[in-house]
Formats: sequence, C-alpha cells, structure tokens
Amino acid sequence: MAPGPVVRVALAQLDCVVGDIPGNAGRIEDAVERAREAGAHLVVTPELALTGYPPEDLLLKEHFLADARAALERLARACHDVVALVGFPEREVDVFNAAAVLSEGQVAGVYRKVFLPNYGVFDEQRYFRSGEVAGTFDLGPVRVGVTICEDIWESGPPASDEAAAGAALLINLSASPYHAGKGLERERMVSQRARDHLMAVAFCNLVGGQDELVFDGHSIVVDHRGELRGRAEQFKEDLLVCDVDVGAARAERLRDARLRPSAGRSPPRVQTLAVVAAELSDGSGEPGRITPPIEPPEDEIYRALTLGLHDYVVKNGFEHVVLGLSGGIDSALVACIAVDALGPEAVTVAIMPSPFSSDATQADARTLAANLGVDVLEFDIASAMAAYRGVLQEAFAGRPEDVAEENLQARIRGNLLMALSNKFRWLVLTTGNKSELSVGYSTLYGDLAGGFAVIKDVPKTVVYRLAHRRNARDGEPGPIPPTILERAPSAELRHGQRDEDSLPPYDLLDRILEGYVELDQGREQLIARGLPETEVDHAIRLVDLAEYKRRQAPPGIKITPRAFGRDRRVPITNRYGG
Amino acid sequence: MAPGPVVRVALAQLDCVVGDIPGNAGRIEDAVERAREAGAHLVVTPELALTGYPPEDLLLKEHFLADARAALERLARACHDVVALVGFPEREVDVFNAAAVLSEGQVAGVYRKVFLPNYGVFDEQRYFRSGEVAGTFDLGPVRVGVTICEDIWESGPPASDEAAAGAALLINLSASPYHAGKGLERERMVSQRARDHLMAVAFCNLVGGQDELVFDGHSIVVDHRGELRGRAEQFKEDLLVCDVDVGAARAERLRDARLRPSAGRSPPRVQTLAVVAAELSDGSGEPGRITPPIEPPEDEIYRALTLGLHDYVVKNGFEHVVLGLSGGIDSALVACIAVDALGPEAVTVAIMPSPFSSDATQADARTLAANLGVDVLEFDIASAMAAYRGVLQEAFAGRPEDVAEENLQARIRGNLLMALSNKFRWLVLTTGNKSELSVGYSTLYGDLAGGFAVIKDVPKTVVYRLAHRRNARDGEPGPIPPTILERAPSAELRHGQRDEDSLPPYDLLDRILEGYVELDQGREQLIARGLPETEVDHAIRLVDLAEYKRRQAPPGIKITPRAFGRDRRVPITNRYGG
Repeated sequence: MAPGPVVRVALAQLDCVVGDIPGNAGRIEDAVERAREAGAHLVVTPELALTGYPPEDLLLKEHFLADARAALERLARACHDVVALVGFPEREVDVFNAAAVLSEGQVAGVYRKVFLPNYGVFDEQRYFRSGEVAGTFDLGPVRVGVTICEDIWESGPPASDEAAAGAALLINLSASPYHAGKGLERERMVSQRARDHLMAVAFCNLVGGQDELVFDGHSIVVDHRGELRGRAEQFKEDLLVCDVDVGAARAERLRDARLRPSAGRSPPRVQTLAVVAAELSDGSGEPGRITPPIEPPEDEIYRALTLGLHDYVVKNGFEHVVLGLSGGIDSALVACIAVDALGPEAVTVAIMPSPFSSDATQADARTLAANLGVDVLEFDIASAMAAYRGVLQEAFAGRPEDVAEENLQARIRGNLLMALSNKFRWLVLTTGNKSELSVGYSTLYGDLAGGFAVIKDVPKTVVYRLAHRRNARDGEPGPIPPTILERAPSAELRHGQRDEDSLPPYDLLDRILEGYVELDQGREQLIARGLPETEVDHAIRLVDLAEYKRRQAPPGIKITPRAFGRDRRVPITNRYGG
Repeated sequence: MAPGPVVRVALAQLDCVVGDIPGNAGRIEDAVERAREAGAHLVVTPELALTGYPPEDLLLKEHFLADARAALERLARACHDVVALVGFPEREVDVFNAAAVLSEGQVAGVYRKVFLPNYGVFDEQRYFRSGEVAGTFDLGPVRVGVTICEDIWESGPPASDEAAAGAALLINLSASPYHAGKGLERERMVSQRARDHLMAVAFCNLVGGQDELVFDGHSIVVDHRGELRGRAEQFKEDLLVCDVDVGAARAERLRDARLRPSAGRSPPRVQTLAVVAAELSDGSGEPGRITPPIEPPEDEIYRALTLGLHDYVVKNGFEHVVLGLSGGIDSALVACIAVDALGPEAVTVAIMPSPFSSDATQADARTLAANLGVDVLEFDIASAMAAYRGVLQEAFAGRPEDVAEENLQARIRGNLLMALSNKFRWLVLTTGNKSELSVGYSTLYGDLAGGFAVIKDVPKTVVYRLAHRRNARDGEPGPIPPTILERAPSAELRHGQRDEDSLPPYDLLDRILEGYVELDQGREQLIARGLPETEVDHAIRLVDLAEYKRRQAPPGIKITPRAFGRDRRVPITNRYGG
C-alpha cells in the first residue's frame, strides 16, 4: 500500500437536546476543542446537532431557524486549526437539512441533504427541500465527500458522484433511530458503501432519547475495503478519534476499472463546498478504538430502554419517578429499568392491593422493592372501590358486574399515582407492554395513565426474556423474585382472572402481532403462514378496535421496526378489518 | 357566445367512510345511477372516494390496495352511458393518488395526482409517488382536463398544460378539509383558476367527518369566466347536476392571446387518458342549483361541529353519548351540539357536584338539561373525594392542599363517566375548549377523559359566540340559561376559583394563542403586535409545558387553520421556549 496522507477524524457522538440551541452549541464547541487536542483534522457532529433531532414543527418558526443560524456563526468563530462538519437547518430560499463546513472562523460551505425520508417515524418532506447535488470539500490534498443520514443508504448519488469526483473519504452525519439489531444493519450498509466506491467512510450518529425515539450512537469508521477501523460506544456519548489512510484507498482505486471515467457514464454532478488548507502526515495512521458491541440482544434492548427513560426524565426536568408495582412481570421489569436508569433513590413504587389481589403477588412486589432498594407506598383501594360502588349504585341497579367495575379499580390506581405526581412532581411510569397495547388489554386512564410508557413497544414474550436476563446478568440472584417470572399473567381485576382466558397464549399472540402490526400482513397471509384462523381473526379485531386507546396512551420507547405512535398511523374511524 | 356543445356534469358529493371499500363502492354506484337518470354525461366523485380519505397507513397494506382495485373494476362494469371519474389508490410500480375514467364497463384511463401535500394535516408523500404529467380525456367533441385536489391550487401545470392541450372543462376531485371560512377561500381559488385558463371548472369535494377532520362538501361549478354555475350543500351529501357550455369557453379562448401557442412557451406535457364517444346537445344548458352559503360564520362552525360529532359517533358504531354538565358554558355548548347532532334521546348528561359546586351552576345545568330534553344522572362525588383523602392521608401528611386534590375531583368525574361508558357502551364527550387545551388548564384523565373532544379546536371567545348564536338562532329563548352565558368562568375545584385568577383574560389570551399556535409567531413578534409582555411570556410558557397533556387528549374536530393533533407536531421534550 501507498503511505498516507492520513486524515485524523473525530466523530463527536453527542446527546443533543431538541430545541436547546445554546446547549447544543456548547456541546459541539466542547467536542471540537477535545478533537483539536487529540490532533484531529476533522470533527463530525450528528445530523441537525445544533437543534437536536427531530425538531419537528419548531422548523416552521422563522425565529427558531434564525436562532440556529446565529448559533452556527458563533460556533464557526470558535473553529480554528480543525475543520468541523456541523448539522443544522439552513434557511435560504427554502429550508434544507444541512451540514456546514466550519473552518478558520467561517462557514466555509454548506451541503444540503438530498434524500429526505418521509416514512416510518420520519416526516422530513414536511419541513425540508431536497438538496439537488453532491458536495465535496478539499482538506489539503484530500477530497472529502459529505452526506447526511438517508443519503448514504442509497448506492447511487450523492455518494457515487462524490467518489467519481475523487473523494477518498466519505462523511455521514446521521440521526438514525434505534430498533433492535439496527446497529449491525447499519455497519453492514456502511461497509457495503465503502466497498461500492472504494472510499473510507466515517459515520457519526446521534445518541440519546427524544420522546419515543432512542438514538444509539454506535458511530463507526471503516476503511475503503469496508473493514472496521473504529466503533464508538452504544447508548452513550463518545468522541471517537481514528486515522484514515487515504493513500491506500487512492492506490487501490487507480487499479479499479469501475471507478475510471468511461463513455457510458454521465459526469458526476458535484459542487465544491470549500477548499481548506491542512497539513496531513504520511504513514498508515492509528486505528481508532473498537468498542465491542453489546451482547446478548436482550442487553442491547435493555440499554435502549434505560437510556430512553433516563433522557426523557432528565430532559423534561423531572428528578423522581413513581410506578405501581402489581407483583406481575411487566411492572417488575419497569422497576428494574427505572432503578438502572435513575438510581434507587429516584424511584418510588406504589403497591395498591384490592380484594382481588393475592397475598402472593403483594408479597412478591414487596420483595422486589426491597431488593431494588426503592421507597414503597402502600394504598388499599377497597374503600375507594366501595365509594364508587355507592355513587353508582342507583345508575347501575340491576346490572351484573362487568368490565366497568374492573376498570374502576385500574382507574383508582391511576388516580392515586397521578395524585402523587401532582403533589410531589414525580413522573408516573406506566408498565404496559406492546402485546397488551396491541389488543387493548389495558384500561384507558387506569394502567395507561402516566407520563412515560417504558415498555410499550416490548412484546410480552420479550418482556420475559428481558426480565430473565436482567435477573441473570450479574451472576448472582437478581432482584426479581422467581415467582414473578413463573406465575401465569393476570390483571387481578376479578377472582381467578388470567390473561389467557381472554387472549391467545402470548407466544402465539406475539407472532400474529408481529405479522399484522409490524409487517402489514393481512388475515390471509397470516393464515398461510400457519397461524390458526380463530386466533388470527380474534387478534386482528382486537388490534383494530383498540386504536382509540393507543391514541391516548403516553409516549414510550421504540425498540421494534414498527412501534405504535408516529411509526404506525392508522385512522380510528376505519371499517377495514385486517 | 357560440352555442354548445353542452356537457352535463354531476358532482357526487359523498360521505365516504375510511376503509369501507364495499360501502363506498355502493355509494358511488348509486350516485352514478342517479346521475345517469338526470341525463349527466359525466359524474365526478371526491378524491380517494373508494377508500375514504385519509386512509393513512391502510395504504401500506398490499391487500388493501388489491381490494380497492377489485372494487374499482366491479364499479367500472356498472358504468354505462355515463362516464365516471372515481378517486382510488392505484398500485402500479408504486402507489399513486389516482382518478380512474370509467366508461362502457372499463377502466378507460387513469390520472395520477401531481402535487402531493405534505404539510398541515397532510402526509401524502408518505404514501404516494407523484404523477408526472397532466391528463385529459375526450368526451365526444369536448376535451376535459383532470386534476386531484392540490393540483388545482397551483396556477401552472397540470391545469395550464391541460388548458394548452385544448381542455375546455377542468375537473377536480378533492378531499379538502374544513376550517372556518375555507369554503369561500376555495370558491375564490377555483374561480381564479377558471379565469387563468378560460376553462370551466367542476370541483367535487368530499363531505363528512373523519376523526379530527370534517370535509364540508361545498362543491361548485364555475364557467370559464369564473362565474358560479352551481353550488352544492355544505356539510351534507349532495348530487349537484349542472350544464357547462363549452362552446362559450372555446369562442372566448380563440380571442385570448394568452392561450395561443407562442415561441416562448414550452409545449404542454399531457397524456390522453381516454377517448369516449358522447352525444352532446347544443345550446347554453341549464345552470345548476346554487345553494346559498351558511351564514353567519357561527352557524357554519356549528354545522361543522355537528357533522363532525355525528359522523364520529355513527361511523364508530355508537348509539348514545354521555357528558358531564357543570353549569359552565363549555359543557352547555357541547350538550347543544350533541342534541343537534344526535337527537335528545341519544344524549345523557351527568351532573356531578362536589362541595365546591355552587347551587347556581347546578341549577343551571338542570335547567339546560330540561330545556334540551335529555336524560340526567346526578352523582354527588363528596364520598369518593373523602375515600381518596383517607387512602392518601398518610402519604400526604403535612402537605397543604393543592392541585393534587383539585385534580382528584376532576378525575373522579372522569372515572364516573367512563364507568357509564363501560357499562352502557356510551361514548364519553369531553367539553374542553382550545384555549384551555392550549395552556393546559385541564386535568389529564379528568375533564380530558373521553372518546371525542367536540370543541377542542374552538377558542373560548368563539365558544361564547357559538353559544349566544345557538340561543338566538331560532328567534325564541334558546336552551342555554342566560346565567350560563354571563357567569365568570370557573373550574369550581376550590372555593371562589375563577379562570382569570390563573390565566390572562380570554379575549387577550385568544389573541396571543392565535399568534403563537396558529401563526408560528414568536415572543418578539407578539410583543411587537402590541400584546403585553407579561401575558405573552406566561401564555407561551404554559403552551409549551402542556404538550404532554395534549398528546394524550382525545381527538376532536378541526375548525381553525391549525388545530392540535397532526396539524401541529411539536416535541414534548423541547427546550426551545417560544
């Protein structure tokens, strides 16, 4: 291989806060300073780092865009002796999702994102106009291509045009949200893109929780052969410094026929963003740190939930959370996540038995709380139940007890938690899982009452896996009493109630739900997959009917390829069954 | 003017139900039959009439698209002796928002919408690819241009290309949602478009409620000079039949230099969708019926609310609604709307006094219920308040009473209404207005608990106007006791409470909110408009803080240019103030 030149890249994997322009500018400035101290030539932030991602309709406010621009100019003035690529919303003839090249005190150039995702959780075409052309800048003798997030998921332009224009290093600023396994998907894609164009790639992703999304970081640098040169932390802020040997890429590209100009290929459309003086060294450079990926998958999901909860609590100014502990597995898992995210001193649990609560579940709840070291409040709800019964006696005369009385219990518990929230300014965590929320096996304003729904996107079967793994994780008996892991699930709203009296068994239900909710499979396809017709029809009907409940459910953390919320937008008024 | 030919157009202003493909096909087939009986040459449905609008993520299901196609083919087989333009989602290489030309048993051609709105409540770029080219079809000797909704809001292509290609009549299939005054805005635009191109325009809009949207109908036909030739009903289904004298348009176009081919203009890009035989008569034809617009504006808004509520209730299969009547103006207005939408026998009101409820408000609530002829249930909530006080005594020991105790009262009422809903399958209507919801002056799971929020987009000052007008409407004393109209607003959650102790006066607050919420004006702009700084800062802070409540609020009817919900997408976690 030819020696050098070597570009030292620093990926500033930051936890930016939406709307906090001064705070984000400070985070970026600090990272730029640390990158300079580490001898980096180039420091890269995530997409829209200056505003946080996604800023949503803040982007419709002209004063917000002006504030972002002013902060960018201030930041530029702090950039000397290192080039910074900073994500920001550019307000020109329209609004663009942009990356500024900051160099020697100036905004030296601006790249505009070409591919604007408008599917899943993304609404970028609501806000932005597409950039129309690829962009490179020259860092001393090295040409660097710039892309933003979705741009690099395409094998053609802008990346191919930048390669054809001579870029040997491709930069990507991303805000790519997490779902289980997404990090390794992204690594494969980035590596493929490097091999497509024989360019090294430096991919910088956002990290942190923002409402329903978690950004997992997991930024990487790969060389022109797609080999990993550096991997940042998952689920935490990081500054990954890594040398890229541009000479090796150049030498190999000269030998590759694909990259030679040919008659059949249209000339690349590329703008030059900036030309920046830089003194690069020769040699092959130092590889970056390669942080091992979090394994097994349960630990990765658990870390996503922990970060998502932590950031929602902290970024919204709360210092304490409260949740109801039933003695069941869902609330047990949420309690563990809350303690791991915030510490036991920031968590209070409420045990709220009714006459239908068994001694065993209450005992388990107390044991779990003691194991976790959290404060416990106990409320017997029998007197409140009796009060409602009295108030409603005449209106309900002659009617058998049914779901109305069951839901009242759940709502009394919801009211008590909200009273604690109002009195002490605690955030209420709800404890429902995705399987329940899918089929509406939950009480609106009851167990659905709260500010944040930690495991709303976690199917029941995955709840079990996470709980078992959490208990086994530290190699000693975990906090969750084994009876909680083993008992058949019950809402305990009437005597002898069991979830599976009303619902298909969870392992079957979760397979139906994955097909119906996440993959848009219809009745016929599900049955063709071998799923039983009766349960398929039952589950589909329940999912469709429960849309009105989900519309009023609190936000919670997306961990699957399709979560409820903005990821899945279905009408409430809807006569299509399936 | 030259005589004829005359095209008789029928606008099938239908109330289509989202997802109800067989039902919508039946509605269309019935309208086609009635149009044929009326001697129409051409019958036009609203945009996406076959699936209802907006079908949202149903469009991601391949089986849904296949079902729509099959229904379209069946519908085509029923079309003889009249041409039908039917809106449907076309699944080809991608998905298009399309209009089929049905003629002589066939799908003779398909036009694809060019402009896909992706702002406000619209997400069309999530689902559809843009059509790339204008489209006309020949109806005997007359060339007809086709557009879908947003296409006609642009003065250039596709409409200008269709005019340049010789179209003398422009068709538009719309699903244009209502806000106050939108109907007349649309009339002005359609009339302008006719004058732009010297084409007659037949504009067919959807009617009916769909979750948060109301489509107001108000379909029109204008001649090539922009003069109104026919106007359908607002807020109800209609079939508007109207003759269009194409000869007059042609004669005038020959004299107009703007429409002559010139060297400077690029040739129109137009595809011919179909050529259909038709025997048209000569003469100037019969103008259509011109339904007078609903006036004053309060009546128009009231009708929108009535239709929106009616359709939400009926399309979701409910037969009865319940709401809490406090003796205040908001619940009084909602009760009137419910009775006007559904009839008094379908409405129950609950009067739920606490020790803080005055005799006067309770008496007013009873009088109103009697005037409206609705069933009344009364629940004294003091015993339930006492029960909660007992349960929470120890946890709250030493703390002063505050919003926690106030909210418990609202939540007890919410629970009682939901218990009635669960027991009797009644839909709970909430009664909060937009001003309250903006600043969070409402209790989550309390007065915000319910299935449909009828006046959630109605500012408090407009609530007063609607209530006064409802009372005056019939020329005799209205149902709302005058004391309800005159009393200072109070939540009655503590002694002597008045809204204006916590909030700016509503006339001032509503002006701030219109600027901040609907117009994206920031603090500086609001103050520059002369609004007082203290109240501006107070209101902005409250609006930003209340986002988490709005996220869990029930759906309700959009009547302003920007409603909460999908119309205004702001993050909960958001440190940008203003």
